[in-house]
Order: sequence, then structure tokens, then C-alpha cells
Amino acid sequence: MATACELCDESGGEILFRNEQLRVVLVADANYPGFCRVIWNAHVSEMTDLAIEDRSTLMRAVCQVEAAQREVLQPQKINLASLGNMVPHLHWHLIPRFVDDAHFPHPVWAAPVRQTAGEMLAHRRALLPALRAAVIRCVSCTS
Amino acid sequence: MATACELCDESGGEILFRNEQLRVVLVADANYPGFCRVIWNAHVSEMTDLAIEDRSTLMRAVCQVEAAQREVLQPQKINLASLGNMVPHLHWHLIPRFVDDAHFPHPVWAAPVRQTAGEMLAHRRALLPALRAAVIRCVSCTS
Repeated sequence: MATACELCDESGGEILFRNEQLRVVLVADANYPGFCRVIWNAHVSEMTDLAIEDRSTLMRAVCQVEAAQREVLQPQKINLASLGNMVPHLHWHLIPRFVDDAHFPHPVWAAPVRQTAGEMLAHRRALLPALRAAVIRCVSCTS
Repeated sequence: MATACELCDESGGEILFRNEQLRVVLVADANYPGFCRVIWNAHVSEMTDLAIEDRSTLMRAVCQVEAAQREVLQPQKINLASLGNMVPHLHWHLIPRFVDDAHFPHPVWAAPVRQTAGEMLAHRRALLPALRAAVIRCVSCTS
């Protein structure tokens, strides 16, 4: 049995979508409105711990959320990452990146290089209701 | 036509495998022996710029390289990331992580927290011939 794991015990964010296999959550990050995670519900560590068909299911969801983020937020770039060094429970970070964000062009885990203007962050936060709807629509697609 | 792109113009590392669609390269990173990248040959930016069958092809290769890294290096964790803020040409970083590596448990893009012992790095470098062989074998699998 797994020891205490925060992604087994907690949702990991505001749940936008959940089925038996995975969930999509919106991350509350003041610098990164629209940051989402796709979390495999069962406790496994690595992509290659999943059966091949489950890897496809997970990456299809990741791409569907990416599509929703691109449609609504129109970022400069999407950053995808499965790290899990601290929480080895398979989860994907999906981070919409903008040229004026706190770390661009560096990864969000590097030192910040600027403070994004408050009105730009407010503009992006105002798009979150549309993003929630787009995620639900995209993840519910069959393709 | 794309403007100058280093992953269009250069291999991006020591090529371990290449076919018409993608290539796998070994990255020369003194702190991270076994760091590989899977690079889509054509210049596209995002996973969702690819056709769905190409996304599957790419992620299958990513998982095959991850399997080779786990088999040979037996890392604590594999870190996967598609960032591309500086080089927006679709490529996946596959980084075997160890509890004694320069950044663990933080992402490799954060500030380093230690220097890994030279003999441990030498031990991991000594596994690179086996990793090269395992990558070729795993990526040549049909599943």
C-alpha cells in the first residue's frame, strides 16, 4: 500500500473534469492563470508504469487540455512536464507561457526574471471561466 | 518557411536513433549522464500542432526511451518535459534523476543544491554504452 501521498489524499486543485482514470485540475498560481494539471487517479510514478493504452488515454487528455488552453488563452508557448520528484504520483503540469510572464523564456522552476503587470494577470484571470468551459468540452471529446 | 532554428539546423546531441519522423539524442550534460531528448524532425511548436497519430508516435518513442533509461540507470525518478520557450521546435527532455544529483528533488532548471560525487557521476557515465544499446533496442520495438 502506498504511504501518504498528497495526490492520493487530495484533489490537487480545482477539479475541472474527473473520470475513473484521471482528473484535470486548475492550479491556483497567481503568476500563471490557466496553469492546469492532469493527474492519473491511481498511484503510479512513471509513464512506463502505466499500460500502453493508459499512457495513450493520459496523453490524449493532456493534449485536449493543451488545446483548450491554446484556444482560450492564446499563449506564446505551452510547457508540459511530468516531474514528480517530490510527489511521485503521475501528474502532468500544463503551463501556458507568455513573453511577459514571471520567468519567460526560462522554465517556471528557474529564478523569476520579472513581475508581470497586474492588468495583464487580471486579463488572463478573466479568461478562466472560458477556460473551464473549454477544458470540459475538449476533454469530453472522443478524439 | 521557418526562420533559423537550431533543431532544424543541427542534430541537438549525439544521435542514438533516427527515422523519418523523429530522432533520439544523448545530451552532453556533465551533471546528468543519460539525459536524452526525443526531437520531432519537422518544425512544429506544440504537441497539438501534430496530427493525433503523430502525437502517439512521438509519445511512444518517449516512453521507449524512458524504459531504456530506467532499465540501465535505475534512477529515482524520470523527469519528462516539453518546454521550447527558447527553441520552439517540439522536443522532449528525458532526465534520469537521482537523490544525489545536483538539483534533487527540485527540477533541473532550479538553482543547484549540491555537487554530485565524482565517482557517482563516473559510475553513471560508465553505463552510457549500455544505455545507447538499450535505447536502440527499445525504440526499435513495435509496441
